[in-house]
Amino acid sequence: MIRIFVTGGTFDKEYDEIHGRLFFKDTHVGEMLRLGRSRVEVSVRTLMMVDSLEMSDDDRAVIVRNCAQCEEDRVVVTHGTDTMVDTAKVLARIEDKTIVLTGALNPARFRGSDAEFNIGTAVGAVQSLPPGVYIAMNGRVWDPARVRKNVAANRFEAL
Amino acid sequence: MIRIFVTGGTFDKEYDEIHGRLFFKDTHVGEMLRLGRSRVEVSVRTLMMVDSLEMSDDDRAVIVRNCAQCEEDRVVVTHGTDTMVDTAKVLARIEDKTIVLTGALNPARFRGSDAEFNIGTAVGAVQSLPPGVYIAMNGRVWDPARVRKNVAANRFEAL
Amino acid sequence: MIRIFVTGGTFDKEYDEIHGRLFFKDTHVGEMLRLGRSRVEVSVRTLMMVDSLEMSDDDRAVIVRNCAQCEEDRVVVTHGTDTMVDTAKVLARIEDKTIVLTGALNPARFRGSDAEFNIGTAVGAVQSLPPGVYIAMNGRVWDPARVRKNVAANRFEAL
Amino acid sequence: MIRIFVTGGTFDKEYDEIHGRLFFKDTHVGEMLRLGRSRVEVSVRTLMMVDSLEMSDDDRAVIVRNCAQCEEDRVVVTHGTDTMVDTAKVLARIEDKTIVLTGALNPARFRGSDAEFNIGTAVGAVQSLPPGVYIAMNGRVWDPARVRKNVAANRFEAL
Repeated sequence: MIRIFVTGGTFDKEYDEIHGRLFFKDTHVGEMLRLGRSRVEVSVRTLMMVDSLEMSDDDRAVIVRNCAQCEEDRVVVTHGTDTMVDTAKVLARIEDKTIVLTGALNPARFRGSDAEFNIGTAVGAVQSLPPGVYIAMNGRVWDPARVRKNVAANRFEAL
Repeated sequence: MIRIFVTGGTFDKEYDEIHGRLFFKDTHVGEMLRLGRSRVEVSVRTLMMVDSLEMSDDDRAVIVRNCAQCEEDRVVVTHGTDTMVDTAKVLARIEDKTIVLTGALNPARFRGSDAEFNIGTAVGAVQSLPPGVYIAMNGRVWDPARVRKNVAANRFEAL
Repeated sequence: MIRIFVTGGTFDKEYDEIHGRLFFKDTHVGEMLRLGRSRVEVSVRTLMMVDSLEMSDDDRAVIVRNCAQCEEDRVVVTHGTDTMVDTAKVLARIEDKTIVLTGALNPARFRGSDAEFNIGTAVGAVQSLPPGVYIAMNGRVWDPARVRKNVAANRFEAL
Repeated sequence: MIRIFVTGGTFDKEYDEIHGRLFFKDTHVGEMLRLGRSRVEVSVRTLMMVDSLEMSDDDRAVIVRNCAQCEEDRVVVTHGTDTMVDTAKVLARIEDKTIVLTGALNPARFRGSDAEFNIGTAVGAVQSLPPGVYIAMNGRVWDPARVRKNVAANRFEAL
């Protein structure tokens, strides 16, 4: 049984046809799992829907509390990429669970998005790893202490 | 560094526009990894392009030999789903590598295919698991001794 | 008000996950129109679901009768490409309606299919043309007397 | 031979991965035509890349001049939907050419976009209609004098 917490980020950006801009509506995580014919038991809960650049300390406290208190030992957190590493470091205080953060560099709703692949990587990693906090992006499973987002190149890379 | 061996299966079925039927051309593994913005170092090699129902003992010997002899310790094998478990059991004699078999229930070229998600799951799992042979399908990482394909329901399930 | 008659062909080929082959289930015409945000009043009816190479004279008689007898003056027929020109010539006896045949070189369910574009071309043409029978393929609106399918090149071309 | 003038609009909105917002890069018209296996001879020229709400009278003068002066008698103009009707009315002074304006309610780069269908409708209509100016949206071919965009409902409808 895997818990998935949704927090927003590029992953879930939708196109608002009326106003011609990107916005958040519902998460696409469930749709991605159905597309992947996933039969893992998951429980998906949306904690917030924010750009990770606008995520506050209070928001992070909500994420930490939910990860710590949920029944499941294996947790995936979808998160904006810009501050994913920061949140991962705050989560590191939880020592007895396997927590994998993932997101997308291109929204799930776009043709050519990396969202489907990333949620696959996260689901594969969270079942396979010992307790700890990890980042699954660009096809790699990273230790948050040894990775950063290279904003200009729009990718995660080793420190 | 991950080695990927391609053997065919539904994953790589293409539409032959001239004859109106499914056939094998090139593998879509590279395209799936690019779509996922994967930056894992991979080396992809096509060993064969066959339906797994038509895979012979000789074919399996080729797969085992390549997995055993390649330099990499972490190997993903794309494979038809019908006999994926059989091949996994033959591969079990290789004890010092992490080998993950994956495939697709619906070809990568179709809208709504599970191929992208599955290759993500396999890439996430192969980096995270200790030596052994595993199957990554339906969002789960399975021990080949404890899984079978339910052909009628078109899914993998626990024995 | 446009009538759409569905007869099968590559356009509607689905992937049968159990048997690993292409087959016919339901038509994708309605889904294509929804995707295109079409608000044309249409009435879709499936007459048959066959490969056009297997279409009999009786099948063609059914198509002619339905096109002749329906209330609408504007009719789109989806059809396999191999004998689309033959059926168009038989339909030519109907002189008071605008009939446009279309289909696909690659099934609607595939990424990269021409089905969505073709149904758009047919819908645009059927509203715009005087009575007569036409073929809408490869982005062109053809007179059936002056076009053939080049099977080897998999395209329609002028005679 | 069809001339296609590109002016921007939702049709060509891309996702800027670095800044997390929509922007214009290159037009997707060529890609849409390739996807549709179009073999119509077309000549595509980008006149501008603007939101149609920001289109000035000078911009419209550029569009009119290009439509009037190009060699081709059949012209498709891709355009933002918000002021498509306004531009169509200005183009109405060109009396000897068939001009069809089209666009998209959802960007071509999104899964589930109407762009592919719309460009098909426009290409089908422009070959089939007598001289005049028309709008191809929502699967219908409209007289600009008798249509408006219903912004709240995000669709074109009869006046």
